[in-house]
Amino acid sequence: MATDGEQKKGKVTAGLLIIGNEILSGRTVDANLPYLATFLGGIGIRLVEARVIPDIEREIVDAVNAMRVKVDYLFTTGGIGPTHDDITAGCIARAFGQKLIRHPEAERRLRAFYPPEKVTEARLKMAETPEGAVLIDNPVSVAPGFIVENVHVLAGVPKIMQAMLDILKPRLVGGALVHSRTLVVFKGEGDMAAVLGAIQGRYPAIDIGSYPFFRMDKPGTSIVFRGDDVPAIDAAFAELEAYCRASGVECREEVLLA
Amino acid sequence: MATDGEQKKGKVTAGLLIIGNEILSGRTVDANLPYLATFLGGIGIRLVEARVIPDIEREIVDAVNAMRVKVDYLFTTGGIGPTHDDITAGCIARAFGQKLIRHPEAERRLRAFYPPEKVTEARLKMAETPEGAVLIDNPVSVAPGFIVENVHVLAGVPKIMQAMLDILKPRLVGGALVHSRTLVVFKGEGDMAAVLGAIQGRYPAIDIGSYPFFRMDKPGTSIVFRGDDVPAIDAAFAELEAYCRASGVECREEVLLA
Repeated sequence: MATDGEQKKGKVTAGLLIIGNEILSGRTVDANLPYLATFLGGIGIRLVEARVIPDIEREIVDAVNAMRVKVDYLFTTGGIGPTHDDITAGCIARAFGQKLIRHPEAERRLRAFYPPEKVTEARLKMAETPEGAVLIDNPVSVAPGFIVENVHVLAGVPKIMQAMLDILKPRLVGGALVHSRTLVVFKGEGDMAAVLGAIQGRYPAIDIGSYPFFRMDKPGTSIVFRGDDVPAIDAAFAELEAYCRASGVECREEVLLA
Repeated sequence: MATDGEQKKGKVTAGLLIIGNEILSGRTVDANLPYLATFLGGIGIRLVEARVIPDIEREIVDAVNAMRVKVDYLFTTGGIGPTHDDITAGCIARAFGQKLIRHPEAERRLRAFYPPEKVTEARLKMAETPEGAVLIDNPVSVAPGFIVENVHVLAGVPKIMQAMLDILKPRLVGGALVHSRTLVVFKGEGDMAAVLGAIQGRYPAIDIGSYPFFRMDKPGTSIVFRGDDVPAIDAAFAELEAYCRASGVECREEVLLA
């Protein structure tokens, strides 16, 4: 088992599978993707793909099997509650060709938490996991998530999902940390494209992203230098800053306060 | 070509491919998925899958080809600006095995909009489309989106993306409209699961979704009845309301004001 603070060399990747009709209908705006992306980035794990799919068994099974082989860690959110539309646990079992069982420790926790008259068949459904799954504690509402191989099954409710991630953190082994610096340039993206392309060509190890904005009707561009090679980030950043100074383009570094 | 207001029978589906490192890093929170979902829902098109992928050619080509055969309409957002990290047009051409050309009408529009010194090679990159693509007007910043078969390539900036959707609207032929009613029940999801499962069993044509919440520390559940069969929605809704009344569970219909 990985210990806290351990790090792999190189890139460690993750995928996110968001399970829920309510996201696809537009009724609920997902908040888990940006949270997970930032959380993982902080421990050297890069979110490289996310999918949003409906509460349909075939879709969930196929997506789990397509994604889990492409990434080091796959996370799922949603579909682990007590109602008929909560089908994630059964789908994970099917994806791995395992039996769905009532996990004894999960059942014990639910029975300890709820008064006897509240221990319904529906609530006990929340104790179901694929055979051999490792539980993820839920300090908010008890019903656990679980892990099968590299698939981490989390709640969809953001508060619970976030608490589960904190519990998981010591088990997640990241690689090189991703660093970034952002230069905000008060000039349109089209005017910056040539110099950005040239700098990107000289620093292929990092990603230079360009994001246009308008502030008080004036065009600007946020230019993000991102990667694990800090000297390359600093050098590329300095080249662009020098270019702006030399050509009279207003710019400043964006400093995000934690 | 479809005319405004035309409708297909049955279900019409859409997918959304969100292209952008900035979403996966957590730097930018996507706003296009909920907007598109709601927009399409209003014209009888159901968003059935969304994916978020990085600015990597192989990833984009594979995702476009995987998704476009599964849905009636595929929409992409992001990657159609003037900089080196804007690679969507070339990827769509590759996905269809077509040549990437400089579209004469797109070039004309860009040259008419920008003063001559602003007509850079970078900005003219925004005139590139797969051969034979149909342009999507951009009333905000001129550089157009485009259509190839059922793939609709939109800007990532929400304001431009939304304007392009308004332009596209007459071309999008929806099916049966999806209706929904929501009953808010001041009772935990686990206590409602049995009755919800029973009602879902009696109304298989509609989807009954169950979404727990906490208000002032009291648990509640939003129960959403969704589908194209309005009498079935109303009947299922009435059954649950009657159950709540009979068992003393506080409930009320959630009415969303437009």
